[in-house]
Amino acid sequence: MGQFNPLEAVLKKKKPPLPSILKDIQNVIFKKHASASCASTIQKFFPYSNNLGILKLVKGSTATKKIRVGVVFSGGQAPGGHNVLLGLCRALKKINPDSELLGFLNGPSGLLKQSYIPLTEDVVSDYQNLGGFDCIGSGRTKIETQEQLNQALKAVQDLNLDGFVIIGGDDSNTNAAVLAEFFKAHNQATTVVGVPKTIDGDLKNDYVQVSFGFDTASKVYSELIGNILIDARSAKKYYHFIKLMGRSASHITLECALKTNPNLIFIGEEVKRDKKSLQELIDSCVDLILQRAQDNKNYGVILIPEGLIDFIPEIAELNLEINEKIAANPQLNHENLSEHLSEDLKNTFLSLPDSIKKQLLLERDPHGNIQLAKIETEKLFISMITQKLKEHPEYHEKFSPISHYLGYEGRCAHPSPFDAEYTYTLGHIAALLVQHEFSGYMASALGLENDVEAWQLFGLPITSLLHLEKRHGKDKPVIQKALVDLKGKPYQEYLKLKRNWETDDLYNSPGPIQFFGDTAVTHIQNSLVKMN
Amino acid sequence: MGQFNPLEAVLKKKKPPLPSILKDIQNVIFKKHASASCASTIQKFFPYSNNLGILKLVKGSTATKKIRVGVVFSGGQAPGGHNVLLGLCRALKKINPDSELLGFLNGPSGLLKQSYIPLTEDVVSDYQNLGGFDCIGSGRTKIETQEQLNQALKAVQDLNLDGFVIIGGDDSNTNAAVLAEFFKAHNQATTVVGVPKTIDGDLKNDYVQVSFGFDTASKVYSELIGNILIDARSAKKYYHFIKLMGRSASHITLECALKTNPNLIFIGEEVKRDKKSLQELIDSCVDLILQRAQDNKNYGVILIPEGLIDFIPEIAELNLEINEKIAANPQLNHENLSEHLSEDLKNTFLSLPDSIKKQLLLERDPHGNIQLAKIETEKLFISMITQKLKEHPEYHEKFSPISHYLGYEGRCAHPSPFDAEYTYTLGHIAALLVQHEFSGYMASALGLENDVEAWQLFGLPITSLLHLEKRHGKDKPVIQKALVDLKGKPYQEYLKLKRNWETDDLYNSPGPIQFFGDTAVTHIQNSLVKMN
Repeated sequence: MGQFNPLEAVLKKKKPPLPSILKDIQNVIFKKHASASCASTIQKFFPYSNNLGILKLVKGSTATKKIRVGVVFSGGQAPGGHNVLLGLCRALKKINPDSELLGFLNGPSGLLKQSYIPLTEDVVSDYQNLGGFDCIGSGRTKIETQEQLNQALKAVQDLNLDGFVIIGGDDSNTNAAVLAEFFKAHNQATTVVGVPKTIDGDLKNDYVQVSFGFDTASKVYSELIGNILIDARSAKKYYHFIKLMGRSASHITLECALKTNPNLIFIGEEVKRDKKSLQELIDSCVDLILQRAQDNKNYGVILIPEGLIDFIPEIAELNLEINEKIAANPQLNHENLSEHLSEDLKNTFLSLPDSIKKQLLLERDPHGNIQLAKIETEKLFISMITQKLKEHPEYHEKFSPISHYLGYEGRCAHPSPFDAEYTYTLGHIAALLVQHEFSGYMASALGLENDVEAWQLFGLPITSLLHLEKRHGKDKPVIQKALVDLKGKPYQEYLKLKRNWETDDLYNSPGPIQFFGDTAVTHIQNSLVKMN
Repeated sequence: MGQFNPLEAVLKKKKPPLPSILKDIQNVIFKKHASASCASTIQKFFPYSNNLGILKLVKGSTATKKIRVGVVFSGGQAPGGHNVLLGLCRALKKINPDSELLGFLNGPSGLLKQSYIPLTEDVVSDYQNLGGFDCIGSGRTKIETQEQLNQALKAVQDLNLDGFVIIGGDDSNTNAAVLAEFFKAHNQATTVVGVPKTIDGDLKNDYVQVSFGFDTASKVYSELIGNILIDARSAKKYYHFIKLMGRSASHITLECALKTNPNLIFIGEEVKRDKKSLQELIDSCVDLILQRAQDNKNYGVILIPEGLIDFIPEIAELNLEINEKIAANPQLNHENLSEHLSEDLKNTFLSLPDSIKKQLLLERDPHGNIQLAKIETEKLFISMITQKLKEHPEYHEKFSPISHYLGYEGRCAHPSPFDAEYTYTLGHIAALLVQHEFSGYMASALGLENDVEAWQLFGLPITSLLHLEKRHGKDKPVIQKALVDLKGKPYQEYLKLKRNWETDDLYNSPGPIQFFGDTAVTHIQNSLVKMN
């Protein structure tokens, strides 16, 4: 670590509060709370872990043996990661002072390479309440192939690990279940546990109200959107098109919109349900612009989730076909691709600006998916709207668009008080799941809308979250991504508000995250927690 | 106003503290503090205002007559604007309860159109400590032509204004001096006063340590840069190129760098002094990338001031020639321009990517200057570095660049405690300058590095800041922009640190502005104030 700045110096001295049940951590046990069904298609993949129940942490006496645990960050950064390490470290030491925590470096590949540092109180306390994953780094390697699984097995044996904790998103938690199963099948007693992390909010179910990081990231983006809204209303001459990180699901966009009241937003899941074409989305922007112009408002703010592009049926189809064509013929580029496309998709492709054509042909991610963050949907919208406004020359001249992409600036912010407390608790739960040898479980806390003291803590069998998905042409058990629920309360709340947003400029600037002072300000709840 | 969110609800109840001298506002007077020289080239333009002294606010008894004052925001938004209105409103009422404040709508054109709203305590108190200029809006109209000056004269006569306060940057304060002179020449007793506003920090002199808004905007950008730095160090795979708003001067970039310690920054003023070519700047990035790669660090963060492009001698020359050529032949575009350029500039132009060529040909601003915010320097750098790295194929593959532009998200943030207090005080000084009929003055406070109570308050003759500049081919008196002083302390401090930044990852994440708690956290000083 370098020097601490004044905020960090204060933050790192602030020990997060814990749920009441954790105050006597040596006298808690997990009790079966409910049964959890594992989908019939999934069971055969997990003969050892397809019948695990949901566990609840309750008071009870237990042995407190010393254990040795490894931990790893997997995938993209999310605010609060360091507090998971702290929670883990402190819980292990409180359970038994001789316990040890190893931090594998730079993601799951650190386990395979057996590359780690000891995470003692001295090391982790320097990161208390601080953003980033930089204490041990992160990475995107998966432990999937037989060779990798064997390497992982060898590593936990060589290092004599009682437990291995994976802090990650849907795929990384799937990986935790696979590894747990593999260890069980090989009579390896190492307990594998997952911690639900992702700013995207798409790791969500009956026992995960929200993944950690979502609260902070959506607050950072809302701060900036709020500032831009007030700028729009002050300058009265710009339309801001703001693309927001969040992969497929539109949770972040919906959350930021509920916090800031922009003029128009798109929800990918709604676009897909209503089978909207790209031109229809553009038309809705143009309608807004023309309608507001009548009130002499030649400014506004429009939010676009980065996943939107892949929810537009024609673009999703185009993408699938591009995937196939490129796989078959890697020589194809944005200039010669169109002749290889089917007739209707060819027209869609040709209607796009060159820059977007090129972006649609960029390298796929390791899952074979298009890299949504690299598609400049916000510029595509501006370009198509500008074109369409030429039919309305009186407004065309007044249209002054500015594009933004908010993403990387939210992933390593210092965690909001909620995320700081939530992750600290999750670290404790993960330690207890390892201590009590519940392998293949994810750490879970419910009642997050209440004060920390009242939170209820659970262990959730990861296999109960799996379904089959085609990946690289093969059926694979994965955690189903939680998209925005169009029957859910946040979306329904948005439906009530959206008409007024279009015309009334109900702009709201929530300001920067506050760490000190009135809890009404420091602990503003996100809709996933509040409207559960 | 819409609904207040929890932070706004608390902020708007928080009355900013005032300098001690203002606690008995009915018993203060301005006393001549020093003489101020007006440049000999300027004197003839200002026969009535070329010999004004610098005034200091001291205790003294005076008449407290009722006055009627108009106020206007001019130019781009800056955090704290609303508190100037509040300070003005409250000071006027404290001096005499029958005084009145009118807020002209949407910039100086509001005065010309006599379009205004009364700014009573009821109206302005809803905006206490809140970002934006949206209480009355802003605009970029200047009051320059004879017709506009006459309209302004008619407006202050029609509305019976004792004073008119312009809250603006260098050009808007120049405008205040012109208007003050015009009124004096026409025996119109309306006192015109300026308040130094601009996030860019380029309105700065012996009596203006910093313009308001700079502190907040640079803190918002530093928050985001800090987050991105930690993200870079956590993910270990991206180079982030961050362009920063700030017009010509590199103050914001320098300030953000001193707060966050990125790997490399460019200071336009230094590039100009050293006559660096674009290729040399690219080479310095490539050198950094290759050097860091040797330490296995394939990530980093580079800051680029938006004004940089115009400090690179060859590009500045190219720009001037493009200005001329387009003025002479508006049909020129990025494809046919090169044949009209002189030989050496032709090569420079042809070496640029098409997107940048197009941007260099975009519409000029009302001053005939290129619109710096629209030149994607950050993408130009990425494109040229990618090209150059092809000579180093072993690193080329590892270069994964991401571009950012930070600007609009900083202009309407809720003001930092410093900006909230500074602007509230500036509003009071403006009210007193009007009350005491010192026309052509700018409100000034010194000792800003101390607690508010100890601040010293002044009136600064705007004419003393003017020099001659060519605008649209004509000599015009304008306030000289304060560029980064290459002998000044902030730049010297940077020189000491820069080598370590390149290799040692001294990344610092200052976090979001805090409004409550420890003053060591809430009142972190910027370098313009601290290193004065």
